Amino acid sequence: MSRRSLLGGAAAAAGAATLTATSAGTAAAAGRDVDVAIVGGGLAGLTAARDLVAAGRSVVVLEARDRVGGRVVGLNLAGGGVTEGGGEFIGPTQDRIKALADSLGVETFATYNTGDNLLYKDGKRTPYATDGVLGAVPPVDAAGLANAAIAQATLDDLAKQIPVDAPWTAAKADEWDRQTFETWLRANAVIPSAKFLFDVACTSIFSAEPRELSFLFVLFYIAAAGNASNPGTLERLTETANGAQELRFVGGSQLVPLRLAAALGDRVVPGAPVRTIARSGDKYVITADGITVTAKKVVVAVPPPLAARITYDPLLPAARDQLTQRLPMASVGKAIAIYDTPFWRADGLNGQVVSDTGVVSSTFDNSPPDASYGALMGFIEADEARKLDGASEAEVRAAVLKDYARYFGAKAASPTSFVLQRWNNEAYTRGGPVSIAAPGVLTQYGPALREPVGGIHWAGTETSTYWMGFMDGAVRSGERVAKEVLAVL
Amino acid sequence: MSRRSLLGGAAAAAGAATLTATSAGTAAAAGRDVDVAIVGGGLAGLTAARDLVAAGRSVVVLEARDRVGGRVVGLNLAGGGVTEGGGEFIGPTQDRIKALADSLGVETFATYNTGDNLLYKDGKRTPYATDGVLGAVPPVDAAGLANAAIAQATLDDLAKQIPVDAPWTAAKADEWDRQTFETWLRANAVIPSAKFLFDVACTSIFSAEPRELSFLFVLFYIAAAGNASNPGTLERLTETANGAQELRFVGGSQLVPLRLAAALGDRVVPGAPVRTIARSGDKYVITADGITVTAKKVVVAVPPPLAARITYDPLLPAARDQLTQRLPMASVGKAIAIYDTPFWRADGLNGQVVSDTGVVSSTFDNSPPDASYGALMGFIEADEARKLDGASEAEVRAAVLKDYARYFGAKAASPTSFVLQRWNNEAYTRGGPVSIAAPGVLTQYGPALREPVGGIHWAGTETSTYWMGFMDGAVRSGERVAKEVLAVL
Repeated sequence: MSRRSLLGGAAAAAGAATLTATSAGTAAAAGRDVDVAIVGGGLAGLTAARDLVAAGRSVVVLEARDRVGGRVVGLNLAGGGVTEGGGEFIGPTQDRIKALADSLGVETFATYNTGDNLLYKDGKRTPYATDGVLGAVPPVDAAGLANAAIAQATLDDLAKQIPVDAPWTAAKADEWDRQTFETWLRANAVIPSAKFLFDVACTSIFSAEPRELSFLFVLFYIAAAGNASNPGTLERLTETANGAQELRFVGGSQLVPLRLAAALGDRVVPGAPVRTIARSGDKYVITADGITVTAKKVVVAVPPPLAARITYDPLLPAARDQLTQRLPMASVGKAIAIYDTPFWRADGLNGQVVSDTGVVSSTFDNSPPDASYGALMGFIEADEARKLDGASEAEVRAAVLKDYARYFGAKAASPTSFVLQRWNNEAYTRGGPVSIAAPGVLTQYGPALREPVGGIHWAGTETSTYWMGFMDGAVRSGERVAKEVLAVL
Repeated sequence: MSRRSLLGGAAAAAGAATLTATSAGTAAAAGRDVDVAIVGGGLAGLTAARDLVAAGRSVVVLEARDRVGGRVVGLNLAGGGVTEGGGEFIGPTQDRIKALADSLGVETFATYNTGDNLLYKDGKRTPYATDGVLGAVPPVDAAGLANAAIAQATLDDLAKQIPVDAPWTAAKADEWDRQTFETWLRANAVIPSAKFLFDVACTSIFSAEPRELSFLFVLFYIAAAGNASNPGTLERLTETANGAQELRFVGGSQLVPLRLAAALGDRVVPGAPVRTIARSGDKYVITADGITVTAKKVVVAVPPPLAARITYDPLLPAARDQLTQRLPMASVGKAIAIYDTPFWRADGLNGQVVSDTGVVSSTFDNSPPDASYGALMGFIEADEARKLDGASEAEVRAAVLKDYARYFGAKAASPTSFVLQRWNNEAYTRGGPVSIAAPGVLTQYGPALREPVGGIHWAGTETSTYWMGFMDGAVRSGERVAKEVLAVL
């Protein structure tokens, strides 16, 4: 199934005009000379466009794909309906995505969370309640739980020392940016079962292994999991109830970008990957496949490694260029198996697994609110994603379903349909869900994340001070960049 | 001074045709349909072209700049003569660059190494002999020297466990790729003066700080500092006599790429940055600014982060794409001050400094073999390079000369001329001297370094099993890729 066919249906469901490359002609005519050219039609770019248009400015949104939404995408199901191939959950303190969805009439519902979680460890399958004193912490040995609790409290405490708008200015930023998260865990999660819990949390949160991440970056990410009145915590990142996985959108998360785009009309130009951004007098000329735009200001709202692939004239400052060489995308896929019913619910399970083995080691019940069918969604993350990048879709499906059957019984091996989103293999993402920082990156290059270069401004969830890596961060970055541009237009 | 004017002179000195964008027209006509299109006219690409032509194949070398040489460049001096802005030294076991230079009639001479080195530490300037029992180890306290000697021996021992063609298969690869070099040093170079020695060695070798580097990558780099009969050692990386800084080229290192290019004639197309590599039937269409080439095979011989900026159709496998997101260029500049004479020689100094402070903390006597003038060359590395990326050339000059005066006396403050090469600010390098790997990169992505993708083959010093990061590695990679391509043509 091509992305175009997938999105055609979802767009129609949203009441939005289906976006295809053929509409570029019209938009090109309409949008050749604008106040602001926006590169990237994900949540960040679309939110920025909304705010700029509301302020009376003319904009064009140049989107490389033939759909909007970026890392938020709807995947049509063979039996009808749509499920999420990318960002889908929202939770407490994610105020800006919530406000945006509200404004577009997109409603939320609680992620299914009734019944037991499953721990699959050392070949043993153990259901456990989600309302224990430690929340939904898997029942590993007592020493491991105690170790994990102390390490978690330490992480939250250290995260409080991080100014989210400039993590590199924390008093201990240098110390924290000298080591990997793995190094810190080896010193602080010394009980093997505690280390296991953090390893699973790490891959679930970042789709990266602890060895790939700067400890400073991890602390920043925790600090960013909140808002101005609620400091971020690790628990808010990992939990379903009261956490970042608490709510889903009725009709699917893709309704948010689709409705944003629908309101923008032919200001959004799909099928237009931007190749060059060149200063010309006091304006910029933005060249994309099939369209050239002249603009007073430019907003680049794509992930840093993709921003690096645009040719800039004049050259970007070294700090900005080298930053984009150092924020690779993590590695992630999503596998969604569809069943006639969410049969695991009858077994007293909420569909959430934590596992020490398998292609998928973290799952959710992704069924629609009316449970008219059942959906098991699993993340394929980090090392596991990389192992499967070259595998056929049939091979991935077989490996995933073997895991699902191990977790939820034989029935799980025979879904009515199966959809797979492999972000590493997507041209205009090449990984996901978010850029990650190795040691030494934030302390030396952090300031270049948001600093405008002439009339070029930067957006995207990677530039957000709160909820970087989430839909909320993308929306916040769009709102911030619109204000930033309006102040200088 | 523009690069073009700099190179015009050097090219003329080499007896090579001056390469300018205007010659592209001729070459385009000659080179539109070839056996092999080579992207990048550095030592790797030019060596590959030489070998392919020798085997009777037709080639085009598409070079983005209006000069060849890549990270090897000659800088013309105001008073006449030329000095090296990039790679310049060769040493024992660097057999392939030596053989290439020999074949082109480019001779070597010993890097000036007579007299004392200088240690500048804690505000104190201490000359020291280079023939001590520990070689040219700066005279820090005895405990620090002992600690450093043990740590150095350990590094060499561990490096012996690294298969240079596949470091990720070392028995302890996972353990070594989980931590930064900084983490390892903090555990193994515990005496502050020992840590200082390794910090200086690290920035001198990699132009990166220990926190930026995977320990596995550091061990690989040491292992690669040798050849099939001589295992690599840290000392071979750091030393002048018997080390990687032992020899220089008479007339400058740029003579090697210039003479290679001259022999290739208009097969080399300057001013032609490659934008897309697209498969078309059983051939490839390579689109560069001003020229389109059809070829049976493609050799991409540019650094990984720049290879990432080419658009590939079909898409590259995720492993290759994500690799190129994870091998950023280090940060380096070179500052060369010219004087009437190498006056430090009369003071019994060899011009080599190791310092704990300053913009330049490592220098060499870069005078020509006849000492008809004096030249002090200093590296601006890692954090220091980044601090100065946005500074004006005058500001950098002032900061560098302040350091030189501190090291070599007041005379050093008044050179007759001064040239600066800032690799971070160069469009077609954006850093240097080499790509570096943070933790987690080699173990997960290493195999993608050299694995061909269809008819696309990879070269460049970053792909070399020996002397990665050096001119020798570039030449080896060119020779290897030519053999690889000939085997499948």
